[in-house]
Amino acid sequence: MTVLSSTDRDDAEKKVKSSYFDLPAMDVSVAFPQATPASKFPPCTSDYYHFNELLTPEEQAVRKRVREFMEKEVAPIMTEYWEKAEFPFHIIPKLGALGVAGGSIKGYGCPGLSITANAIATAEISRVDASCGTFNLVHTSLGMLTIALCGSEAQKHKYLPSLAQMKTVACWALTEPDNGSDASALQTTATKVEGGWVLTGQKRWIGNSTFADLLVILARNTTTNQVNGFIVKKDAPGLTVTKMPNKIGLRIVQNGDILLQNVFVPDEERLPGLNSFQDTSKVLAVSRVMVSWQPIGISMGVYDMCHRYLKERKQFGAPLAAFQINQQKLVKMLGNVQAMFLMGWRLCKLYEAGKMTPGQASLGKAWISSKARETASLGRELLGGNGIVADFLVAKAFCDLEPIYTYEGTYDINTLVTAREVTGIASFKPAASRSRL
Amino acid sequence: MTVLSSTDRDDAEKKVKSSYFDLPAMDVSVAFPQATPASKFPPCTSDYYHFNELLTPEEQAVRKRVREFMEKEVAPIMTEYWEKAEFPFHIIPKLGALGVAGGSIKGYGCPGLSITANAIATAEISRVDASCGTFNLVHTSLGMLTIALCGSEAQKHKYLPSLAQMKTVACWALTEPDNGSDASALQTTATKVEGGWVLTGQKRWIGNSTFADLLVILARNTTTNQVNGFIVKKDAPGLTVTKMPNKIGLRIVQNGDILLQNVFVPDEERLPGLNSFQDTSKVLAVSRVMVSWQPIGISMGVYDMCHRYLKERKQFGAPLAAFQINQQKLVKMLGNVQAMFLMGWRLCKLYEAGKMTPGQASLGKAWISSKARETASLGRELLGGNGIVADFLVAKAFCDLEPIYTYEGTYDINTLVTAREVTGIASFKPAASRSRL
Amino acid sequence: MTVLSSTDRDDAEKKVKSSYFDLPAMDVSVAFPQATPASKFPPCTSDYYHFNELLTPEEQAVRKRVREFMEKEVAPIMTEYWEKAEFPFHIIPKLGALGVAGGSIKGYGCPGLSITANAIATAEISRVDASCGTFNLVHTSLGMLTIALCGSEAQKHKYLPSLAQMKTVACWALTEPDNGSDASALQTTATKVEGGWVLTGQKRWIGNSTFADLLVILARNTTTNQVNGFIVKKDAPGLTVTKMPNKIGLRIVQNGDILLQNVFVPDEERLPGLNSFQDTSKVLAVSRVMVSWQPIGISMGVYDMCHRYLKERKQFGAPLAAFQINQQKLVKMLGNVQAMFLMGWRLCKLYEAGKMTPGQASLGKAWISSKARETASLGRELLGGNGIVADFLVAKAFCDLEPIYTYEGTYDINTLVTAREVTGIASFKPAASRSRL
Amino acid sequence: MTVLSSTDRDDAEKKVKSSYFDLPAMDVSVAFPQATPASKFPPCTSDYYHFNELLTPEEQAVRKRVREFMEKEVAPIMTEYWEKAEFPFHIIPKLGALGVAGGSIKGYGCPGLSITANAIATAEISRVDASCGTFNLVHTSLGMLTIALCGSEAQKHKYLPSLAQMKTVACWALTEPDNGSDASALQTTATKVEGGWVLTGQKRWIGNSTFADLLVILARNTTTNQVNGFIVKKDAPGLTVTKMPNKIGLRIVQNGDILLQNVFVPDEERLPGLNSFQDTSKVLAVSRVMVSWQPIGISMGVYDMCHRYLKERKQFGAPLAAFQINQQKLVKMLGNVQAMFLMGWRLCKLYEAGKMTPGQASLGKAWISSKARETASLGRELLGGNGIVADFLVAKAFCDLEPIYTYEGTYDINTLVTAREVTGIASFKPAASRSRL
Repeated sequence: MTVLSSTDRDDAEKKVKSSYFDLPAMDVSVAFPQATPASKFPPCTSDYYHFNELLTPEEQAVRKRVREFMEKEVAPIMTEYWEKAEFPFHIIPKLGALGVAGGSIKGYGCPGLSITANAIATAEISRVDASCGTFNLVHTSLGMLTIALCGSEAQKHKYLPSLAQMKTVACWALTEPDNGSDASALQTTATKVEGGWVLTGQKRWIGNSTFADLLVILARNTTTNQVNGFIVKKDAPGLTVTKMPNKIGLRIVQNGDILLQNVFVPDEERLPGLNSFQDTSKVLAVSRVMVSWQPIGISMGVYDMCHRYLKERKQFGAPLAAFQINQQKLVKMLGNVQAMFLMGWRLCKLYEAGKMTPGQASLGKAWISSKARETASLGRELLGGNGIVADFLVAKAFCDLEPIYTYEGTYDINTLVTAREVTGIASFKPAASRSRL
Repeated sequence: MTVLSSTDRDDAEKKVKSSYFDLPAMDVSVAFPQATPASKFPPCTSDYYHFNELLTPEEQAVRKRVREFMEKEVAPIMTEYWEKAEFPFHIIPKLGALGVAGGSIKGYGCPGLSITANAIATAEISRVDASCGTFNLVHTSLGMLTIALCGSEAQKHKYLPSLAQMKTVACWALTEPDNGSDASALQTTATKVEGGWVLTGQKRWIGNSTFADLLVILARNTTTNQVNGFIVKKDAPGLTVTKMPNKIGLRIVQNGDILLQNVFVPDEERLPGLNSFQDTSKVLAVSRVMVSWQPIGISMGVYDMCHRYLKERKQFGAPLAAFQINQQKLVKMLGNVQAMFLMGWRLCKLYEAGKMTPGQASLGKAWISSKARETASLGRELLGGNGIVADFLVAKAFCDLEPIYTYEGTYDINTLVTAREVTGIASFKPAASRSRL
Repeated sequence: MTVLSSTDRDDAEKKVKSSYFDLPAMDVSVAFPQATPASKFPPCTSDYYHFNELLTPEEQAVRKRVREFMEKEVAPIMTEYWEKAEFPFHIIPKLGALGVAGGSIKGYGCPGLSITANAIATAEISRVDASCGTFNLVHTSLGMLTIALCGSEAQKHKYLPSLAQMKTVACWALTEPDNGSDASALQTTATKVEGGWVLTGQKRWIGNSTFADLLVILARNTTTNQVNGFIVKKDAPGLTVTKMPNKIGLRIVQNGDILLQNVFVPDEERLPGLNSFQDTSKVLAVSRVMVSWQPIGISMGVYDMCHRYLKERKQFGAPLAAFQINQQKLVKMLGNVQAMFLMGWRLCKLYEAGKMTPGQASLGKAWISSKARETASLGRELLGGNGIVADFLVAKAFCDLEPIYTYEGTYDINTLVTAREVTGIASFKPAASRSRL
Repeated sequence: MTVLSSTDRDDAEKKVKSSYFDLPAMDVSVAFPQATPASKFPPCTSDYYHFNELLTPEEQAVRKRVREFMEKEVAPIMTEYWEKAEFPFHIIPKLGALGVAGGSIKGYGCPGLSITANAIATAEISRVDASCGTFNLVHTSLGMLTIALCGSEAQKHKYLPSLAQMKTVACWALTEPDNGSDASALQTTATKVEGGWVLTGQKRWIGNSTFADLLVILARNTTTNQVNGFIVKKDAPGLTVTKMPNKIGLRIVQNGDILLQNVFVPDEERLPGLNSFQDTSKVLAVSRVMVSWQPIGISMGVYDMCHRYLKERKQFGAPLAAFQINQQKLVKMLGNVQAMFLMGWRLCKLYEAGKMTPGQASLGKAWISSKARETASLGRELLGGNGIVADFLVAKAFCDLEPIYTYEGTYDINTLVTAREVTGIASFKPAASRSRL
């Protein structure tokens, strides 16, 4: 081979590519015959303490229905979509037909599930693919729920039935480039004009927003200086949504950067029950519970996958399941999963009894996601090299947990929310006049 | 001061001692006025997820009764006895009067508590002092339970009523110097002779054994080579028990080294239902559940203490509870405690439903004690210097957890027990013909 | 919106895509104005203990040269290539011109660096992009070094000069689908035929293999049953290499599945010094040291990025650097980085003194990669949402560490290698006749 | 046995005690024949990366001398003194004869060691018994060093020669009940009177203070409101020192509660160079380095002990060293120890080069003590039941680390000191006007 100039190199690249890169990748079950990839999803072996017995028959039925759908329809395709960072739009109608969109909302074509059933559905979706869990969570427990709790009767009748069948998709826009953990400081403005409102500002990280039919936008009313809520349609002039690239986790979720440049919203699309940031608290109470169940579901899937893998894969003449170090990791994961189940379940029961506090919800989200992170990390180790490729689920789950650990209140913020409740002292802000060296 | 010879130094020591060491130590509440020591026990603030609501009224009554007793009678004296490594014998009759000795045993003067109530009692005792928890656990869930499950009617009538009132105290001797984790390999022998048996061997770590009226001894029948059980009285000729010194944890528990030199046991003191090591499994199933509730109780106490301390103690012009780092630790502890409660509770429910497996019990013990260890370590940090002295509970709790982490199956052994159950492969032993370098 | 059939949905997708997805993603510095992305690489603030002073002037010069190149040439493009999972072939000549390819090999056009200089180069490359580090490591410390240590004079003269300039690229193929941790059990065969050898088998995970000009293949000699080494050209008939997709880390590295179907290798391309698996040990000694320096470099980059980010990004009216929780994480990372430096440095010194043992190398790799994983995880938390996108480096680094934690001996295997050395007992294999339940 | 009244019980106790408690405890090597206790100290196997080669011959000689003394003189007795929480006064002259008291102080009969040699001595003392390490550290690097750096020539000539031979013992009193982490806020006052000063206030946690001949007391000058330093003799009227009981760690160290009630100090005993809290910084720079070497020494001892124990103790038919789980723990400990050595060594080199910053010292102390805590905790697990008794060193070391983790700046405070240096922002104080719920 001779020295190549830069142009030569480009040609060389092309040549290299023509001879090598045009080959389709080997199917993982051919390339790695010793263990079954997650496209054929492993059986559920993670319910070691028979948590299922704590569920009502209805809740068990939801669990079974969602699990079967996810294993059959989503497991075979998720690796591909995750790698491409694209959403499998064709599964939306099927997901809509499961009867879980709309969750605990009663009436308006919504399923009216118990919070526990809604939570179980979230876990079962996330067990196979957390991105689908986030898709539904944004749609159901943020977008739809805000309309259900803060919307007018007319708005509810107009939007919820179609959303409940996922004929239309919702998103919910709070976070801004300059306001993440300190979300209530949002700067997008809503200015009253004749017949409606004009919205101006920027949103970031908004899930589903690149294709949602309907965007619930939180903005600051320039008259009252309070946060208000608005329903914006995807074709509204002045609205631009661009997909955020380069994510390491939840790659199937389409997060968008939203630009609102004098977007007009007619009066009837303002949510009458959302007149201050406090009015979002009922929505966030539910969504935080649901977010807690994503890491539970993810951890179930990770355990289930590792359990099968360790028995299939052999090294040094024995299945990996025969090695002390591997056994101990597997059992640590199993313990975590049982505890997560029970924490999530207790949170649902407190909610259903009408006594769940913000601090309790924050504790649940923080503690559970922290244990899930530990669990996925152990699972990643257990799968060795195959813990690096999404085909065996665990690598994907390991990455998907990171955004979940951080959204709906980072671990740190949630612990401070709980701490404020149990100590009576808020410590979010650092000392005002801190000494600088 | 002049150079001292060694003898001079001894004199000097005496002189030093006379001027300094004869001073009684300052009372901690005088020496450290800013925070209340644990002799005045802190209120229970650790039940953040209202776990109490999952208990029956009877179980709640046991909880209340035991808690009040421990806070009133034991909290004020435990620091002193722990430091001295002595047992406060005078509380035994009061502990006996609580109606928890004998635990779940029905009849024979025993309280016949539910497993959950027994567990709650264990936790409440251990919340204030884990050593008392171990004392009762050895007495009730090992000594008495072995008689109840493996004894003859005559034996049960003879021994249980007095034991249930703690008029007499029991212990249970399995562990030997050469057989800890591999307990079933015990070497103490029982040889049949006319009218009875002769026991020979050595036991180690046997709790309560230095003063127990009655010792249940496990020994290998020299005829069958199987493990049998015997009731030995404390005044039996040939029996020597010496107290094990220098323990860092559970210092109030009196662990003994037992020497059996041709100890004669009459036929009627052999337990007819204990004919192999497998026959101890029903006993160990209960005791392992109970052991799981010790770290739960300890962690409750640690959290309760830290919660009060952080609000009382000020540095840099603010209560310690106002600092982010401290808040985060406290909340991590709180999350752990909630999860431990629920894991322990679920284990009890599985037991009560007759379906608890050894692997489930081992997982509970291992996972819970591991989280308790983390919790106590965080609490130790939160108390700073006062986390070093037993007066503020946490230092003591930190140390008490260590033997608990290790007894009734070390963390490692318990994880391997669970792993064997979920993988179908035992990995206790290393490779027989391992390659040596 | 009306109900869509599956075909309608596909059309809808297209329509959605045309209106939304064709928008180019916002540039991250526009979308997130508060903090500078890693394309403009942060200054190095991680050398807190002045480790640089332990280097010779030559080593410092290598460090400076590589750092400048990586910050200038690679930092701006790495996010894009990482996301696409493609290799930036156009940087190969520039990387070749740095004078680090060939590393410590002396003569044959190679730079003859000290091991420490080679290590420093590895760290500086990996600080900006670990994939480039792996690319060079496979090329230099596996491919080239095997030729240098096991090749004939003729082979060295023929191949090394071009490789040292990266006019040609090498790879090194050991791992197989069935033999990962137990690599020496490889099954690819080399059968002697007239004038050469015929290779048959399968390799997996082979870095650079999809485009390497020259593949060093390890195969089992069917006559001696020992492992031998062969140089295979990329256009050899019977050789198929397909790119492994769906990786979560080191996405720029092109790992291949290799299929060898009766590939003929002429006699002069067999490496005469590689006659058993033991003969690879000198190569692996170096490569394991180099692999240890990848996590060091990654951690430096992560710290540097977090340090800048915390000072730029504001929430609750203050820079993130002002919050106790964030400060503590940053300092924990900083401590880890200092310790990693020193461990890596000491390993180099032991190597250079000719006394480094396999156990020491394994300890270095295991310990350092373990601390790097902790460091990257903390950094991931510190960056919040921007810790999810590769644009801010840390997300990418977090993922890149996972394959490194696992390759060149997983963490677990490396600890057992060290343990064998310090205890004299090998524990790789589980008990031969393990009891099954 | 009949029911006992409370008085009967007391009698019973006595009787029990007479028959049981008067038995001397079994010697641990008899009670537990399988493994050697720490009274016969294990050989040093922890220097895996040949750290010793980084020392000068003089430093190596100090290491050898101190190690031999500690193994021979202290190892056999430390368990007993630790259990009793008493100080072995008879070893003071021998310790004095080692030539390490006075450490790096030059002249006045002091050894003038390098900082590294001083550090090595600290580690070697602490390897066998950390309490002795603290005794010397308080004496040398706080008491003596304050006189050396802030005292007059007359004071240095008067006190240092005797202290350097440990004919007299010093202590150093900063901490107060209300001022621990916020030490500079101390409240003890020094009021000028004719011919001297009157000291009034309270000190807590003062090591050596119950028997020290000479107490260096820090007090606030009521005229300048600055911190000043005074030498107080142990027989000064108005001075009361009482021993703090109930410690879980460093039990051999005699910490005192000091009461100063109008203690008169003549003018010539005021330290002329200590005119503000800043003047202690040179002392604390050295002491913080030395404190960092205590956990290094402790961890060495723990590793050495575990290494021997695992090879001696058998379970399931094999030495504990043959089990994967145990091997992995041992190697994790070994890695930590190597990294600690190197961190401590680098800190010494920075100090010796005159460029060590407070942030660097704090990082060293925090990071090293944190890794030591992890190391001791793993060692505790490895020793099972024998990890509970001080006879096997590890239990004691596990406890001794806790006060060290907390003194000379808690882990948390030290991380904030470093963070202030690297971010330029101090975060010690919480927000002044924090919102309360």
